[in-house]
Amino acid sequence: MKDFFKHYDEIREVKKVLADRDWFLGTSGNLSIKVNEEPLNFLVTTSGKDKTKHTYDDFLLVNEFDQSVWDESKKPSAEAILHRLIYQHTNAKCVLHVHTLANNFITKDFPYQDELSFSGIEIIKALGLWEEDAEITIPIIKNHAHIPTLANEFLPHIKNDHGAVLIHNHGITVWAESAFEAKKHLEAYEFLFQYALQGIQKNTFIKN
Amino acid sequence: MKDFFKHYDEIREVKKVLADRDWFLGTSGNLSIKVNEEPLNFLVTTSGKDKTKHTYDDFLLVNEFDQSVWDESKKPSAEAILHRLIYQHTNAKCVLHVHTLANNFITKDFPYQDELSFSGIEIIKALGLWEEDAEITIPIIKNHAHIPTLANEFLPHIKNDHGAVLIHNHGITVWAESAFEAKKHLEAYEFLFQYALQGIQKNTFIKN
Amino acid sequence: MKDFFKHYDEIREVKKVLADRDWFLGTSGNLSIKVNEEPLNFLVTTSGKDKTKHTYDDFLLVNEFDQSVWDESKKPSAEAILHRLIYQHTNAKCVLHVHTLANNFITKDFPYQDELSFSGIEIIKALGLWEEDAEITIPIIKNHAHIPTLANEFLPHIKNDHGAVLIHNHGITVWAESAFEAKKHLEAYEFLFQYALQGIQKNTFIKN
Amino acid sequence: MKDFFKHYDEIREVKKVLADRDWFLGTSGNLSIKVNEEPLNFLVTTSGKDKTKHTYDDFLLVNEFDQSVWDESKKPSAEAILHRLIYQHTNAKCVLHVHTLANNFITKDFPYQDELSFSGIEIIKALGLWEEDAEITIPIIKNHAHIPTLANEFLPHIKNDHGAVLIHNHGITVWAESAFEAKKHLEAYEFLFQYALQGIQKNTFIKN
Repeated sequence: MKDFFKHYDEIREVKKVLADRDWFLGTSGNLSIKVNEEPLNFLVTTSGKDKTKHTYDDFLLVNEFDQSVWDESKKPSAEAILHRLIYQHTNAKCVLHVHTLANNFITKDFPYQDELSFSGIEIIKALGLWEEDAEITIPIIKNHAHIPTLANEFLPHIKNDHGAVLIHNHGITVWAESAFEAKKHLEAYEFLFQYALQGIQKNTFIKN
Repeated sequence: MKDFFKHYDEIREVKKVLADRDWFLGTSGNLSIKVNEEPLNFLVTTSGKDKTKHTYDDFLLVNEFDQSVWDESKKPSAEAILHRLIYQHTNAKCVLHVHTLANNFITKDFPYQDELSFSGIEIIKALGLWEEDAEITIPIIKNHAHIPTLANEFLPHIKNDHGAVLIHNHGITVWAESAFEAKKHLEAYEFLFQYALQGIQKNTFIKN
Repeated sequence: MKDFFKHYDEIREVKKVLADRDWFLGTSGNLSIKVNEEPLNFLVTTSGKDKTKHTYDDFLLVNEFDQSVWDESKKPSAEAILHRLIYQHTNAKCVLHVHTLANNFITKDFPYQDELSFSGIEIIKALGLWEEDAEITIPIIKNHAHIPTLANEFLPHIKNDHGAVLIHNHGITVWAESAFEAKKHLEAYEFLFQYALQGIQKNTFIKN
Repeated sequence: MKDFFKHYDEIREVKKVLADRDWFLGTSGNLSIKVNEEPLNFLVTTSGKDKTKHTYDDFLLVNEFDQSVWDESKKPSAEAILHRLIYQHTNAKCVLHVHTLANNFITKDFPYQDELSFSGIEIIKALGLWEEDAEITIPIIKNHAHIPTLANEFLPHIKNDHGAVLIHNHGITVWAESAFEAKKHLEAYEFLFQYALQGIQKNTFIKN
């Protein structure tokens, strides 16, 4: 677990900055960072904690069997399965999942609308697309209370080392090659969603 | 008064986090935490304080007769009656009452609309409802300047160990089994209200 | 100047809390607190300072002739005249003037609409009106670049020891018997303005 | 480089205050301050940093050839060219470029609308226009992924020692004679944009 302390520090810092924005209302959201490749180990937020607080119990070390490694009495969030799947299928190092007003409301037209595409807005460059007319598309999937079912719905969208999925009236899950990149992508998406919600003239920039 | 200092610390922490969000504008709002069962004693915010400040006078110890126990020269908020009623009729440990733009505006159609129901939004799970199509209903009651009259209107809605009531153009009162749970519920309700206010297409998720 | 340091501390604290809310964008706004009755002396913000910073030069001691008492090289804001008029005509101890999006936009229909009335919202109690159907009316006056002209327009509205005036597309001026009261009133008004701006159905609560 | 440390401190302070408002989402935005006249040297934000963090690597010293002076291994933001052009053609001392929801959305009607004019709002005085009916006009230019092309589009609008340009769906660039003035101007523009976005009745104050 090379750079363990660095990774722990990075994910705590991300948690703090996002908590300051109230992106974890009602104990929602979960964050993780990969700390070992083989066997897979990652730090993930303990289920159901108030993320405006910063304690020694905020994160658990979890393995590829979705188990808490250092303290078996504690359980990771059921949604940690999604994080594990991302780490197993890509080279992502960090996964961020938050509920915001913007990322919930933007999905309200699902299933009629099962993806959103954005183009012509500068912040798209933060997603790694530098061409002038780059278009970014983010899928929207059905929300399921049963997490393994949600995981099945989610899995086909895990295609690249960074990416994002919107879950209907639930939130966004973003992953990328580092905590820095994942936070940058998350912020870029939230900016795009807020832009879209602002608009009566949304059609001028959302293609669908 | 077992765990007195723990409870005092918890309610001060909740006050600080909510004050940072400006949920106590104009000295509005009141918070309490139960510190003794028999006889009933709870800490409740002193009336009319600026909750962006944190002082030794922020909370009073109050008994079942709505009296300040340790300092008779001070009076609790008149609305502390609502807190006392909740503690007398349920096993709740904490009561939070805040005025926000969202929880005021969402009640504007009262009395035509005397309750709000929400379903199909993930944050509802924070209210302890885990089923896929869970629906949460929150009553809206008439506001009365005369607090005993308000208390009479409020009383029939105190049914469970956690719950919430909206008072028309006034605010929300949330109670639960701990300060942690009460804050979580409050945040989930505010998220739902903000979602509702966002929407032209509100009808797609508010049933009434 | 009895309680000078207490007053200085109070107005600095108000400045800090309002600055944290970005209520002084573009160096706008001015604050004052009366520190002596006879002759009139008050502390008022130095003109044109960035109020997100907290320095030794934030406030000047000013007399009834609108002059800086301790440092003649410095000039108070031209709008300090309004503060002085309020202190000369009432028993107010504190005057707060801020520019916010809400208090600007709410005045957009002036001169067609030269006052706003609110009733039926709980936060009105923070303005000292406790009756069930209390109605609060706030005048809107024309903005003038020439401050003495603005002062003439403002003067007829200085009637009580606390009060408030909206200046068209400019901001609100609130005064009251203490810094605590003035801040409470200001927050209550801003809450009402935000409520009004929220609404398509504004007519349900704004009488005019 | 007279007053180097003062300038460094000023630009760091501006960065911190704007970061606290989330005006640098997705690592967007760049800031600079001129520290030497002849030859031209300015401190500019290092490309692609998370501006919610404050580190020793936040700024680079850059010369008139767009090169990092003290550490050739690092590169300034490609957009530092715009800062350099402003310093070469005016007496500006500070340039601020931020992406906000307001300054993006306000440009959505470009190219149909290639400038915005505001009048009759008090905050315009913060832009140095004190007359009663002062009107401020800000150009909107096309966004180009190719920065030298963007610079060509930008150049004709660099006319005075302070000014501002909106780039379509990208952000605002503001410059002025000091960090204090640039921040004041930026805040005044953002206030105007937020006012405009608030309004259904925008036409009452935006002339075009």
